[in-house]
Amino acid sequence: MSAVAAILGAGATGAGWAARFALMGWEVRVFDPDPAVAERVEAVLARGRRALPGLLDTGLPPEGEVIFAARISEAVRAADWIQESVPDRLDLKRTLYQKVQEHCADEAILASSTSGFTPSALQGQAARRCPILVAHPVRPVYLLPLVELVGAPDAPKATLERAGEMLRGIGMVPLQMRHESDGHIAGRLMESLWREALWLVNDGIATTAQIDAALRLGAGLVWAQMGPFETARIAAGEAGMADVLAKAAPDLAAPRSHLTDVPDLTDSLVRRIADQSDAQSGDRSAADLERQRDTNLVGLLRALKWTGGGAGAHLRTLDAARQPDLDDITRPVVTQDRAVPLDWTDYNGHMTESRYLFAFADATDRFMEMIGCDADYIAQGSSFFTAETHIRHLAEAHAGQRFRVETTVIEGAGKKMHLFHRMLSGETLLATGEHLLLHVSLDTRRTTPPGPEVARRLAEIAHAHAALPRPEGIGRAVGQKPG
Amino acid sequence: MSAVAAILGAGATGAGWAARFALMGWEVRVFDPDPAVAERVEAVLARGRRALPGLLDTGLPPEGEVIFAARISEAVRAADWIQESVPDRLDLKRTLYQKVQEHCADEAILASSTSGFTPSALQGQAARRCPILVAHPVRPVYLLPLVELVGAPDAPKATLERAGEMLRGIGMVPLQMRHESDGHIAGRLMESLWREALWLVNDGIATTAQIDAALRLGAGLVWAQMGPFETARIAAGEAGMADVLAKAAPDLAAPRSHLTDVPDLTDSLVRRIADQSDAQSGDRSAADLERQRDTNLVGLLRALKWTGGGAGAHLRTLDAARQPDLDDITRPVVTQDRAVPLDWTDYNGHMTESRYLFAFADATDRFMEMIGCDADYIAQGSSFFTAETHIRHLAEAHAGQRFRVETTVIEGAGKKMHLFHRMLSGETLLATGEHLLLHVSLDTRRTTPPGPEVARRLAEIAHAHAALPRPEGIGRAVGQKPG
Repeated sequence: MSAVAAILGAGATGAGWAARFALMGWEVRVFDPDPAVAERVEAVLARGRRALPGLLDTGLPPEGEVIFAARISEAVRAADWIQESVPDRLDLKRTLYQKVQEHCADEAILASSTSGFTPSALQGQAARRCPILVAHPVRPVYLLPLVELVGAPDAPKATLERAGEMLRGIGMVPLQMRHESDGHIAGRLMESLWREALWLVNDGIATTAQIDAALRLGAGLVWAQMGPFETARIAAGEAGMADVLAKAAPDLAAPRSHLTDVPDLTDSLVRRIADQSDAQSGDRSAADLERQRDTNLVGLLRALKWTGGGAGAHLRTLDAARQPDLDDITRPVVTQDRAVPLDWTDYNGHMTESRYLFAFADATDRFMEMIGCDADYIAQGSSFFTAETHIRHLAEAHAGQRFRVETTVIEGAGKKMHLFHRMLSGETLLATGEHLLLHVSLDTRRTTPPGPEVARRLAEIAHAHAALPRPEGIGRAVGQKPG
Repeated sequence: MSAVAAILGAGATGAGWAARFALMGWEVRVFDPDPAVAERVEAVLARGRRALPGLLDTGLPPEGEVIFAARISEAVRAADWIQESVPDRLDLKRTLYQKVQEHCADEAILASSTSGFTPSALQGQAARRCPILVAHPVRPVYLLPLVELVGAPDAPKATLERAGEMLRGIGMVPLQMRHESDGHIAGRLMESLWREALWLVNDGIATTAQIDAALRLGAGLVWAQMGPFETARIAAGEAGMADVLAKAAPDLAAPRSHLTDVPDLTDSLVRRIADQSDAQSGDRSAADLERQRDTNLVGLLRALKWTGGGAGAHLRTLDAARQPDLDDITRPVVTQDRAVPLDWTDYNGHMTESRYLFAFADATDRFMEMIGCDADYIAQGSSFFTAETHIRHLAEAHAGQRFRVETTVIEGAGKKMHLFHRMLSGETLLATGEHLLLHVSLDTRRTTPPGPEVARRLAEIAHAHAALPRPEGIGRAVGQKPG
């Protein structure tokens, strides 16, 4: 039998919890008197279905059922986990908990999504069956792993451990706080930055767009892969954290921001930070962390280039202005001229198998653009789809190594486009890619002849390339001997 | 003739500038009296060579020469751009500028990397030839696009525009500030969060590791792709920013963090933020932004899973515990059972060509693990490398769609492993992948027989699979007719 989660309050946060639990195979019972609740939860669930399962390289259990309960008692009665996500008003929450405590199972976990209140404040003086915990997520809850977990000082350790285990079971990473604190950890960090952002707008120093850009193109990318302390450790290098902190002391004294209140960097605080940093990152050298950081950043930036978000939009613009042009069609066409990205390499440091098809697919896309099958043409409803590919791996390539792809048209008539790509670095042939594409209608998803201009340009190059020697390695099946 | 950059002070920031300029084709002249400067710049340049060229899908110009100058005059004389990155001490900087102004060209751009001082403060009362600008980057300078650009109130607009153009030319995104301000924009935002982080450690609420995790697993990922205001706009949904801000007012009043100083959310400030947000994001609906956010986040998280950094380490752990096991070897082996990731789809919403090889490469990796060619085996110095691949695309797949890969061993003897992967969703065959792998020594990079246990397990499955019907589509060359 699957576990049961009760979701009390299904705004964006509650609906996000519902989606995560359901997609992880839990039965979900939602209580929210809002008549639009079912529609909202279904919309969030649809987004979750599109995004969460593919985060993993392994399959999720069958999706759990989502039931809308008319009463709190009905939602919580058989629940293993009760998540409260009503608006952050103490009176509202306390009233709700009274009802919950009357009906929940003794062993149920009762947790609040509050971004501000401590478990002790939520508990107040009320009678209780199970202790009230805080499990504070970040939105979108169905996607981001962080959840801050904390109980009041008298919360049983075993309950917190069990709660942490259950959160890990739905794919989250519980950050177990040692003490409760208003605003928890993430909330306080986010709030401090938000307040400074409000000052910047208030004082006319920056617009909202500039503030967003300042994070999206800089610190956000850094903090997405290493936090401020590990980043400071890299800056410290072999000198060590204590040295860096001592150097930072004058900066802290400067009234640079509105938010000037800052602890004294006493010897004991410096020592504490340095010790904690050693415990956190001490098994890796600064140079090692730096390599990891660079690899992470290239991965993040290239991921955003693919999605077109954040800094990726900027990288797309840079590339668009620098694509190779079609010039001499009596020779194979240079369709790629670039370097091996860091995120195309594996633990061996060499370009990994799957990325060869990236390069060849990019070469095909560029060739399509050259014959007029570009974004505008595709928007009008047809394109070439790849039907078949044959790749031979002939030599290794490494991060940063320059390579080019030279493309020969083997056949370009009717609905067919048959291309042969050669990937070269200097004079070394790294790989070949033989591709058969068919022109299709994006409406019917069936083959159809290309438009006259695309057909003409393709035929022209195919005709010119017919005079070239037939490339070595063409028309081969896997494992077939050369010749 | 290539442009010339003078780098004055080559710590981590200055050396990062040197690497970016050189990799973008500029001649670079470094002045730094530290005897270790050449070694440091070369180390940063090596990291830049590994990371920056592959950020782009297009080729960079030939790398510029890096020269170490013995005097400031020698470094700046012919420079188009002069970047000062000495320690953040006003006296030090002002003395340096005096020397620079004596020798620089009239048209040179003179910019400081200072994270704190305004251009007016840097300028002081000194005589000058060219105005002092601030061009404040984020480290690593050779990788991150953000640079805050600002001049003193009397700095010519044309100079700032020219500076912005040159920064765009080396792949950066200049954030042109309207007014100078201590700490600029990014610096103030980062500083506010850093101060709160110090309080959290000081008060014993969080360790450095917890603070880093709170960002890396949550807000950092959010801010890497959309800043706080666009994120707030998503939370606002159709209600709009003004509504959300009004709701946030009580939270701001709460003394949740140490940094309680916060502007009054007057009607006029609320209006200003809402208007700026409209100008920034008003052409996209909240639902559209939300879809983009999810796509970005999946891309970021999966990029980190590949590099093993940040939240990626967590996702790897999740996957490792859920891999399909080898059970009945008399049938094709299930080597993948998962859903199509959002970042495997393209603008058409369907799984894009290149990701089919991702799935097949993952299937091959999993099969290798099943026969004992796992991380430990590979660490001992040998592995299988793919020599050849043939893919047929037979049906489309969409984000979130569940699929599996069933793998048949065609041959598994000596140095050869010949696999045939079938990718299925339900009963629909989406694609096939035929792969020939060779066992190689990672030392000599030449073929060599596998270890006895791997050879035995592979032969056992090959023997059992020899009794299966030969898969349809095997041994085909590209474009070859079936049958």
